Amino acid sequence: MQSDNPTAAILVIGDEILSGRTREGNAHHLAQVLSATGFDLREIRVVADDHDRIVAAIRALDGSLGGDYDLLFTSGGIGPTHDDITADAVAAAHGTTVEIHPQARAILQARCDRMGTELTENRLRMARIPVGATLIDNAVSGAPGFSIGNTHVMAGVPEVFRGMVDWLIPRLSGGRPVQSQSVEVRRGESDVAEDLRAVADGFPDLSLGSYPFQDQSGWGTNLVVRGLDADRVAQAMAALKDRLGL
Amino acid sequence: MQSDNPTAAILVIGDEILSGRTREGNAHHLAQVLSATGFDLREIRVVADDHDRIVAAIRALDGSLGGDYDLLFTSGGIGPTHDDITADAVAAAHGTTVEIHPQARAILQARCDRMGTELTENRLRMARIPVGATLIDNAVSGAPGFSIGNTHVMAGVPEVFRGMVDWLIPRLSGGRPVQSQSVEVRRGESDVAEDLRAVADGFPDLSLGSYPFQDQSGWGTNLVVRGLDADRVAQAMAALKDRLGL
Repeated sequence: MQSDNPTAAILVIGDEILSGRTREGNAHHLAQVLSATGFDLREIRVVADDHDRIVAAIRALDGSLGGDYDLLFTSGGIGPTHDDITADAVAAAHGTTVEIHPQARAILQARCDRMGTELTENRLRMARIPVGATLIDNAVSGAPGFSIGNTHVMAGVPEVFRGMVDWLIPRLSGGRPVQSQSVEVRRGESDVAEDLRAVADGFPDLSLGSYPFQDQSGWGTNLVVRGLDADRVAQAMAALKDRLGL
Repeated sequence: MQSDNPTAAILVIGDEILSGRTREGNAHHLAQVLSATGFDLREIRVVADDHDRIVAAIRALDGSLGGDYDLLFTSGGIGPTHDDITADAVAAAHGTTVEIHPQARAILQARCDRMGTELTENRLRMARIPVGATLIDNAVSGAPGFSIGNTHVMAGVPEVFRGMVDWLIPRLSGGRPVQSQSVEVRRGESDVAEDLRAVADGFPDLSLGSYPFQDQSGWGTNLVVRGLDADRVAQAMAALKDRLGL
């Protein structure tokens, strides 16, 4: 698909994904949001709670550090515990250090006051933010995320992650949202491959994909046309249906 | 967690994951299988159906090509359609080319004979295998996966992927399966962080993690101890419960 939309990557930080304990869902949610708001998601990586791995991945993915994509979004590894090393790793990748951020501290203090609890040393760890970063609002649980360079660092707890995405994405400059149309055929993928290829050749500006599946009635294939121009997508889908006799 | 188990990475190939259309599930399934069979999954990547990206990822991840991990498993991008470019990309990464594999052709021919269909040119594309690769059995739909170097290439359709995993994993030499114990506490993550850190310091051979969640009753945290020695895991969990008064 031809697109001059900003490109993006997602970095998920979490041993619990790699161990199989948790099924990742934040990247899937953000992928849908990015597609709808005109960002071109090109890569997702999941790495362990490991300082060097996180630093290397940020450098490889954040365009402001010479990485491959315009924007980088991270999920997980911020919070109060011993294995939450993301703030330090993000700071290291961006050549800076971590400090208690006054505004973040104030947010946490106000929350503790409201709940009648102490701002303990462990809670205060959630105000450790790389120097030079700006905060990402957390409407769910207070402790903020942050943006530095083109890296946007969000929490891994799904409710919090979604809240941060809702706050952040409208503040970024996206491109044109992706338009798509799909049709399901009760035929195997190899039976429709030639027609799909023929139509794809005629629409080099679009992305045509086929996704086979199996259900109680046997094999079928979902055919999907994606692009930035709704008229072109409709034309390609019409051509495809015509060829397939639908 | 200290481990001399073989390390592994998963490479998922698929525009449909990056567009948000499909929620990835194969990596989660394989993560669970690897954990149970003594492989140490260290990284998951999702890239688009893009030749150069796939080649670069394979080279970065397959230890036999100088990449970071002992083993690499891929999901997706094999099949009969125009966007199934994985076989060519895997061949390029391993410095070889793709040919029709006689055994794969025989498998497809036998299947077509059984179903009374023709082995069309499109179906025959599923027998395009890098020279030097060995086949991975596909009990579900015939078209085989393949292994070359330390890269194991499997289909993206979940039923087929799982069938290939079931066939492949017992044929690889794993290490010791990971043992784990977990406990749920109805306290916030920051309230248990100090106790968790103290226990973690006493068990440097284990991995201790805390996973906050939110439900109808408010906030809670799952505490998980993982390691290769069941006795050590039990000792650490006992120490943790003791500190937390559980």
